Amino acid sequence: MTLGTPTQPLTMARGGRLDRVDVTYETYGTLNRARDNAVFICHALTGDANAAGFRPGASKPGWWDNLIGPGKPVDTTKFFVICPNVLGGCQGTTGPGSVNPATGRIYGLDFPLLDMADLVALHRRLLAHLGVTRLLAAVGGSLGGMQALEWALRYPDDLASAVIVAASSRLTAENIAFSAVAREAIMRDPGFHDGHYAEAGTAPQLGLSIARMMAHITYLSGEALATKFGREPQNPGSLPGFGVDFAVESYLRHQAEIFLDRFDALSYLYLSRVMDYFDPFARPDATTAIARRPPKVLVASFTTDWRFGRTHSLRVVARLHGAGVPVTYRSIPSAQGHDSFLMAIPRYHDTIRAFLDRALEDVAGRTGRRGAWAA
Amino acid sequence: MTLGTPTQPLTMARGGRLDRVDVTYETYGTLNRARDNAVFICHALTGDANAAGFRPGASKPGWWDNLIGPGKPVDTTKFFVICPNVLGGCQGTTGPGSVNPATGRIYGLDFPLLDMADLVALHRRLLAHLGVTRLLAAVGGSLGGMQALEWALRYPDDLASAVIVAASSRLTAENIAFSAVAREAIMRDPGFHDGHYAEAGTAPQLGLSIARMMAHITYLSGEALATKFGREPQNPGSLPGFGVDFAVESYLRHQAEIFLDRFDALSYLYLSRVMDYFDPFARPDATTAIARRPPKVLVASFTTDWRFGRTHSLRVVARLHGAGVPVTYRSIPSAQGHDSFLMAIPRYHDTIRAFLDRALEDVAGRTGRRGAWAA
Repeated sequence: MTLGTPTQPLTMARGGRLDRVDVTYETYGTLNRARDNAVFICHALTGDANAAGFRPGASKPGWWDNLIGPGKPVDTTKFFVICPNVLGGCQGTTGPGSVNPATGRIYGLDFPLLDMADLVALHRRLLAHLGVTRLLAAVGGSLGGMQALEWALRYPDDLASAVIVAASSRLTAENIAFSAVAREAIMRDPGFHDGHYAEAGTAPQLGLSIARMMAHITYLSGEALATKFGREPQNPGSLPGFGVDFAVESYLRHQAEIFLDRFDALSYLYLSRVMDYFDPFARPDATTAIARRPPKVLVASFTTDWRFGRTHSLRVVARLHGAGVPVTYRSIPSAQGHDSFLMAIPRYHDTIRAFLDRALEDVAGRTGRRGAWAA
Repeated sequence: MTLGTPTQPLTMARGGRLDRVDVTYETYGTLNRARDNAVFICHALTGDANAAGFRPGASKPGWWDNLIGPGKPVDTTKFFVICPNVLGGCQGTTGPGSVNPATGRIYGLDFPLLDMADLVALHRRLLAHLGVTRLLAAVGGSLGGMQALEWALRYPDDLASAVIVAASSRLTAENIAFSAVAREAIMRDPGFHDGHYAEAGTAPQLGLSIARMMAHITYLSGEALATKFGREPQNPGSLPGFGVDFAVESYLRHQAEIFLDRFDALSYLYLSRVMDYFDPFARPDATTAIARRPPKVLVASFTTDWRFGRTHSLRVVARLHGAGVPVTYRSIPSAQGHDSFLMAIPRYHDTIRAFLDRALEDVAGRTGRRGAWAA
């Protein structure tokens, strides 16, 4: 779907414009007559539009398939679910790995620097294209939760509610530091070629691999790694050396390999930088709009998430509370660290289910359709 | 100092032998007549023999200069302090970057895999060379603390006491995972040349740099990074991009640069692997020797150390306690994470001072020299 065109270019918050923007998205369920049952899914750093269900020929379902589907917390028999790939991504939506129509060359680092506001701006066009004027909810984890927050702050009229999971309104120095090392590994890879690696017939696979392995450690908890791998040898009885001696080493290497098949280094740079710079409450008028027509907000974090844990979520809660926004906060016990937001944890799923069902009741009640889910 | 020779080679615990081993060490203070005031300093992963004082022309003192010196907790007017570079190191003691006398080539990955026992074995030869039959204390932080523990377990007759700071008796899966990514970055660097980079006229500087940046994050605490850098821009007013935008990014890059000047990638591989495999209490006879003649042990950890924090230290304490070893444990409040062991934290320094003074009183009392510090 092409949503930015030369007659309607997308102008970036930090400068620059895109004259052609394609968006890949998936939808599940049906938009009801009142057009008020749409749930927008915002994906994380390396996510894509395939949130649920199996793509043709795929052996694995979408990344949030345990959450989205008939009878699941984001119940596709009740909700019309939309999930696009983000601006700057590499899985169907225009990003730095796309061809610049003005030059016929891949953008590379000539792609404009992105801001969270740009990600939201493009997705608002998608909504307009789909004929949805107001979302029942924007739902996201990690980067996706940050996008949902940005959306709620800038355009509260767009959504009745927002679900912000394992996210942050401001990365810490430690968060930025890990991102910086990942970018350094990518950009200093001899295969990077100043971002024009596709034309050079190479790719910074080493750097991207190192970035992913490191990030993967931060997505899990020490507890989860200890339980899953402990100090188990990869091949009992084999001689020690500098290869894959421990099971955890094999796991990390495997994670890196499958990641290289599905993700692009330039998108990693651009989207990680969007997160680094995200600091919406630093804007003097940050909560002016949301205070006028506050959506209901659910904020959730996981007890062992040391990336965007409780402190990050509580800051969001405090700032929204201060603006008079009705916020529910849940700290979900989980041993799985940051990646918990992708997992089928009963208390977590029950919380999302209850929140969305209530949101639907609210809008149905308002339009006199209490209890009428069907489209 | 050459302590391994063809007539007295050093045999490695995991196989292999070294026919020539050089050791670089420094000493401070004077060995007393009774030869019972020697304190042995074991350095951490990237440390060296220059624990205290200024080397000729150096602008910075040794890495533990705040702890060691006249009037300092490891008081060189009382103690004879010895600090050698470890086996496998790259700062004067034989390691994988040394020349193999049998071939005339740099060892590279042909250097035998090391075990903590090998590090201790070499340093015992140094003690014999120095005419010290029994240490007042072996003192170390991080890898150094692990070496002190190994020493105490294997050769309790060698030492009256041991100080084990910010160390571990068994790395977790998360610890190993971070090490694994660092090694991956080094070994997959195109400049690595299967470890023969010196002959190739290159070095895996990119990989070593990435390894150091990542490790450096784990040496600090989120709190320390937040206090020191927060989200401060490196150059206020400059345009955002993919360079050094935040102060924390500049800091990490600087840390990597100075590290490349002083450390070798092969030593990083070998010594990090020593840590990965260190698991002394897994030996069936782990505490047989120490239970017979237990030294006094001080174990300390720092509250914000998420690398080798409280849990790691308490495991050491529990195991030693179980063997009847008199152990004192201190959890030291500090915001500085793992690197706290290098810092002049009053409660920490006071604890070490008191422990060592008491140890000296004990041996002096035993030999009828109560209160007689001087040599």
